[in-house]
Amino acid sequence: MDVEEIGSFHIGGRTVTLSGLPPRRMRLTPSAPEREFPSDGDHETGQMYVQYVRLISARARYPLLMWHGGGMTGVTWETKPDGGMGWQWFFLNAGHDVFISDAMERGRAGWSRFPEVYPEAPHFRSKREAWELFRFGPEGSYATDPAARRAFPGQLFPVAAFDAFSRQMVPRWACHDVPTQAAYDALVRRVGPCVIMTHSQGGHFGFTAALHAPELVRAVIAIEPSGAPSGVDVAAMRPIPHLIVMGDYSRESPFWMGLMPVIEQYRGALEARGGVAERMDLPALGIRGNSHFPMMDRNSDQVAGLIQGWMEKRGLMAD
Amino acid sequence: MDVEEIGSFHIGGRTVTLSGLPPRRMRLTPSAPEREFPSDGDHETGQMYVQYVRLISARARYPLLMWHGGGMTGVTWETKPDGGMGWQWFFLNAGHDVFISDAMERGRAGWSRFPEVYPEAPHFRSKREAWELFRFGPEGSYATDPAARRAFPGQLFPVAAFDAFSRQMVPRWACHDVPTQAAYDALVRRVGPCVIMTHSQGGHFGFTAALHAPELVRAVIAIEPSGAPSGVDVAAMRPIPHLIVMGDYSRESPFWMGLMPVIEQYRGALEARGGVAERMDLPALGIRGNSHFPMMDRNSDQVAGLIQGWMEKRGLMAD
Repeated sequence: MDVEEIGSFHIGGRTVTLSGLPPRRMRLTPSAPEREFPSDGDHETGQMYVQYVRLISARARYPLLMWHGGGMTGVTWETKPDGGMGWQWFFLNAGHDVFISDAMERGRAGWSRFPEVYPEAPHFRSKREAWELFRFGPEGSYATDPAARRAFPGQLFPVAAFDAFSRQMVPRWACHDVPTQAAYDALVRRVGPCVIMTHSQGGHFGFTAALHAPELVRAVIAIEPSGAPSGVDVAAMRPIPHLIVMGDYSRESPFWMGLMPVIEQYRGALEARGGVAERMDLPALGIRGNSHFPMMDRNSDQVAGLIQGWMEKRGLMAD
Repeated sequence: MDVEEIGSFHIGGRTVTLSGLPPRRMRLTPSAPEREFPSDGDHETGQMYVQYVRLISARARYPLLMWHGGGMTGVTWETKPDGGMGWQWFFLNAGHDVFISDAMERGRAGWSRFPEVYPEAPHFRSKREAWELFRFGPEGSYATDPAARRAFPGQLFPVAAFDAFSRQMVPRWACHDVPTQAAYDALVRRVGPCVIMTHSQGGHFGFTAALHAPELVRAVIAIEPSGAPSGVDVAAMRPIPHLIVMGDYSRESPFWMGLMPVIEQYRGALEARGGVAERMDLPALGIRGNSHFPMMDRNSDQVAGLIQGWMEKRGLMAD
């Protein structure tokens, strides 16, 4: 692969000034003396991390921004937990410049102290919660012992790599929608015309980013979105094609069944305004067994190929 | 640049099982219903994140592992805060496969709840502490207003980008030396023969990794190490060249003056056993103005070039 540049930056955020906190006594390295470090003072908060790979000859018309889901980081798009090729590499090979971010509060974006800066403590998702929420297996089928876990029949997520997957998980807050959206919006303004691909929690941010910058967002590809805006005017979305990709086992998950109506409602609103808003329901295409993480499933190349085909069809690649 | 693969993995860590914690009520996305999420159960902890870029035709004999310092992540080695080319890109261009890690507890490695898993809360380094500790300016010269900050005369750190630099900082614990070293040691075993480049806190881990795997580590390049092992047998280090690179303004910093003796003692011990342990004191070479972060200073290419020259001289590049 002919790479022009690999780089990164932080975007968004602000300075907070803290006072009245007790100092910390610490030894920074084993051979350093213990000393006192003040906790008061200025700190940066709310920033997002973005890493990009630019090709010498991109075939895609616009850079591809890849936005992860809740409790995860940009690692979602990298090498799969089973060691296979992830979607970062797939879409680079397909000719896209790729921008992968770690949203505010996680990964290389860093995080801020609570309750002084963030209002509350984060949630630490258990492996069982992930196993069930991400539709790897039915409720109650997680076990500490990997051999005792019972996945859904035909599951394409590499369940033998579930422990490796769990090492990608990071703490998550549920109170940062506004500053996170602001950082995503700033990213779109910085990159310029772009295609946004989201996963799960990222869906709401991606849909909203398009609403906030319809002149810059050229398409939204939402993988398994967990939410969508409601009660908004989507008239400006008419020239911006949307694709919503859903995996299997939703009917076995009351949680996901409960989330679907708001997604369908948003898709319907886009179509009612004359926009393109397709739902790629993988089981309906005869592709059974995908989890909530199709980019990590054994057939991830197949799903990525379908998405790439949609992008070709939508004129997002150079002729 | 001809890139063969960009990828990542997590390494190290273990499963902890928590019980007796109260569940959390949360709304995961704005349009999702609020529901209860248990906090109990299995969680992964102690893992490290590693991202690599492999070249189609590496000229270096061994991959280069780049280990950041305290309160930082692998972003240390990427694009500089002023937007200039960082050392990841420099050393890729010089022909090295590069592995950049986020050590346990930070960045894409994730972190665990305290006090249930980690024994204590982390330290959140203030911008003033960073400004002084990293030798950007003398004690008391930091100000919230960028225009009011007074850097050391001749400072090569791009102080106009100090706020951008501050967005790279992450919380740090002072109680993780043992599991962090274990993850680094596991990384060396996984990669095999390698060269380790460290920054600051990473120095102690890099020196120790060589002591733990002298058959695999081919050189240690410690940029501004903040510590070194003491009271250890360094006989096996004889074939492993060490380079210690120091910037400017140490004499203006009692903290750094206090750390230097243990570094010099270790270097002396390596030499006493017949090993190569060079100290590259940049001011002694006539290069004035480097901060604690020479990889981000305006002359970062110059310093990297000196290190690359040392690697050539030490036989670490293919002929």
